[in-house]
Amino acid sequence: MPKLSQIACLGLAACLCLFRDSPHHSLHISTAFALVGYVVTDALIPVLSPLFIKVGLHGKDLSKRDTPLIPETIGAVLAIVYLFLMFFFIPFMFYKFLVTTSGSGTRDAVRVSASAATDLFPHVRLAEYLSAILCLESMVLLGIADDLFDIRWRNKFFLPAIAAIPLLIVYYIDFGVTSILVPKFLRPYFDNATSVDVGWVYYVYMASIAIFSPNSINILAGINGLEVGQSVVLAAVLLANDCCYLFSSQKPNAYDAHLFSAYLLLPFVGVSLALLKYNWFPARVFVGDTYCYFAGMVFAVVGILGHFSKTLLLFLMPQIFNFVYSAPQLFGIVPCPRHRMPKFNPDDGLMYPSYAEFAKADLKNSSKTVPSVVSRPVAVVLLILAKLRLLDVKYTDGKISGCNNLTLINLVLVWCGPLREDRLCAYLMGLLLVMGLASVVIRHTVGAWVFGFDNLWVNN
Amino acid sequence: MPKLSQIACLGLAACLCLFRDSPHHSLHISTAFALVGYVVTDALIPVLSPLFIKVGLHGKDLSKRDTPLIPETIGAVLAIVYLFLMFFFIPFMFYKFLVTTSGSGTRDAVRVSASAATDLFPHVRLAEYLSAILCLESMVLLGIADDLFDIRWRNKFFLPAIAAIPLLIVYYIDFGVTSILVPKFLRPYFDNATSVDVGWVYYVYMASIAIFSPNSINILAGINGLEVGQSVVLAAVLLANDCCYLFSSQKPNAYDAHLFSAYLLLPFVGVSLALLKYNWFPARVFVGDTYCYFAGMVFAVVGILGHFSKTLLLFLMPQIFNFVYSAPQLFGIVPCPRHRMPKFNPDDGLMYPSYAEFAKADLKNSSKTVPSVVSRPVAVVLLILAKLRLLDVKYTDGKISGCNNLTLINLVLVWCGPLREDRLCAYLMGLLLVMGLASVVIRHTVGAWVFGFDNLWVNN
Repeated sequence: MPKLSQIACLGLAACLCLFRDSPHHSLHISTAFALVGYVVTDALIPVLSPLFIKVGLHGKDLSKRDTPLIPETIGAVLAIVYLFLMFFFIPFMFYKFLVTTSGSGTRDAVRVSASAATDLFPHVRLAEYLSAILCLESMVLLGIADDLFDIRWRNKFFLPAIAAIPLLIVYYIDFGVTSILVPKFLRPYFDNATSVDVGWVYYVYMASIAIFSPNSINILAGINGLEVGQSVVLAAVLLANDCCYLFSSQKPNAYDAHLFSAYLLLPFVGVSLALLKYNWFPARVFVGDTYCYFAGMVFAVVGILGHFSKTLLLFLMPQIFNFVYSAPQLFGIVPCPRHRMPKFNPDDGLMYPSYAEFAKADLKNSSKTVPSVVSRPVAVVLLILAKLRLLDVKYTDGKISGCNNLTLINLVLVWCGPLREDRLCAYLMGLLLVMGLASVVIRHTVGAWVFGFDNLWVNN
Repeated sequence: MPKLSQIACLGLAACLCLFRDSPHHSLHISTAFALVGYVVTDALIPVLSPLFIKVGLHGKDLSKRDTPLIPETIGAVLAIVYLFLMFFFIPFMFYKFLVTTSGSGTRDAVRVSASAATDLFPHVRLAEYLSAILCLESMVLLGIADDLFDIRWRNKFFLPAIAAIPLLIVYYIDFGVTSILVPKFLRPYFDNATSVDVGWVYYVYMASIAIFSPNSINILAGINGLEVGQSVVLAAVLLANDCCYLFSSQKPNAYDAHLFSAYLLLPFVGVSLALLKYNWFPARVFVGDTYCYFAGMVFAVVGILGHFSKTLLLFLMPQIFNFVYSAPQLFGIVPCPRHRMPKFNPDDGLMYPSYAEFAKADLKNSSKTVPSVVSRPVAVVLLILAKLRLLDVKYTDGKISGCNNLTLINLVLVWCGPLREDRLCAYLMGLLLVMGLASVVIRHTVGAWVFGFDNLWVNN
């Protein structure tokens, strides 16, 4: 039996398709696809979840009193729904070219009007779009492989770069722009050039984006709803940036690129919201690495093919902060326990920050403690961070004996905790949203000032 | 440690890339990719097989004395190697367009020479190629889902049609030809037209090809090596047909289409041969439905994008025969036991045809037998088939009491059995090869006569 919310979504989708005269008709269609994606994902997850448990794809939720067994890798369901939506979207994306061409053989030769070459069927866009879906589908395949076989960290870190290969190759073949803008104050060192061609370095940069984006989603995780929640927030921020171009830009290239970005992001938000419903506290499903990789790759693809891969880094600031903040533990400068998730207290049902202990009790002589493993310079840095309220430090006998595990989640708990899991997730999402929207503003104010112009306003 | 055969393959691949002046240089590169694919698959299968067993993807080989447990779904390894090979092949496929263009922005605008529009970057080909890989990758995803979740027959029968959606959509957008040739003797009924446009029926036909081809590979299976063996033979037959065009055709369109087909088939043969090595009697791995679907879809894609989807049916004759021959059991006209695999005799280690029993012993009164379940007209047909040596019939008290299970495998055993499993597979592969090569000859002799011309010779 379809639920009322599902019927409402489908009705709204149908309405959106009716406004044929709107200048943003294709965005209406894309939004309709998002709604359909929501309904389909919402309907499939409860049906397919038992199958995942049956074949052994499940995990225990350690932050609940009864540590329930719930299905894992449900991100794969969402990803497959998304991919098939994107297939069906192809004719709508090229609607205006289809209804006016004859439909036999090479459409390139058929001009819609005599006006300009822009009326030719945009094969470049089609190739870009197909390579984007191909890249996402490869990421899903590798993500499922990871969830199935539990690939080691040092190996799986590079998986996204493999999945990005089709994207980079098509970028190379079809677009090939490898120049970057030079900030105004650096131009005297580059013969006053506004841009400089960095060649193959640009491909390395794009591959790094493809590696960083999925992994950064993956490490800001560990509580119900956060993987999906942060992805929805990030998509919303990117869409806000797209809207700046879609509703005001005078530059057709930038308009097309951001339209492309919106086409990929709207259905992503749709399917993700359905998953969020099931992954929200108390979670009935886990999303799996498949989802983190998939979501991260959506952002990387949007950034690369929307030609704002540098701006993307600005929007990924919270994830970058989390990565930099985690780095001392990831690289072994500060002791890193097996898990860095916040600590669940079964008595009050709240989450508390978890701590890394610097001085472990010697197991053989339980009365003695081994000396602190943190060197003096590190201790100084930790104390400065503590002063800045970026760290909670524990003392034993006047010496640093531990600090909270270095993740954004624990930091928020240090600031506002203890919190129930869903409030913690909501606080984090709010923080990400504020930082993201601030980034959009910075992009079009400070960015315009640093580079001397903003592609939002200037026709260059 | 790399094996000698692997080093030899890589050396040969390197040599093939050296003949830059050859008019068939791109085919050399494709063959080199096939060799690399062989080496990579050959190296990966033994490394990854234990992982598949560990996560529960395994099956028992019932045609061996000790029914060993061996890994299942190894086709997924091959498929992923193939897909990544195809990604890396993209720049080589468009090599001549890349080395002569400037490499910034829209290459469409850059003419290599002033001669003709054919020198433009072939975005149509790129879109076709990407949609082909997308379709294959979707099939792999659905195949893995089937192997994991064991989807029901009536559901999984249509999975290939879902995977073919990107292919059909891109065909619609980019090529859109939906007319079929009319045989000479039928032309008077069509106003003497040489071709007739069948519109959307053509898309239904292509979807049917996409459904039939993978499923037909899937039902001609059950003994070690046969799934891969028949695919390799079929690919060889298709390549033989391609060679007719590549080394003699005067028609650039046909040449391009068959070059495209060869690009997809050569690496497929490479990776499949490596899998055959491990799947050959006594099998160390099972290929899984993933492989059958994937291989069948390779043929469907090649047929559709190579624009010979009707000819493809001719090459699939042995599979069609197997399907038609099986139909009475599949549709319940003749009793169908749970498994129709040939019977393994542990005493002599040979395979014997398996039989369907028409009159089962009544379990309650073990002395009586229930009357035959086969009606009189069916019995007559069975007797005619038996006369034609297409069936082995068993009699009890002068009445038909059973016949061999209706599969090509059992039929070959009726003709030549009993046989050891590897010889049975070799016989079947030989039969398929002879029938396939005969089809190629028929295509270019009888076909040319029926349609009045052959696109191999005539420029039309």
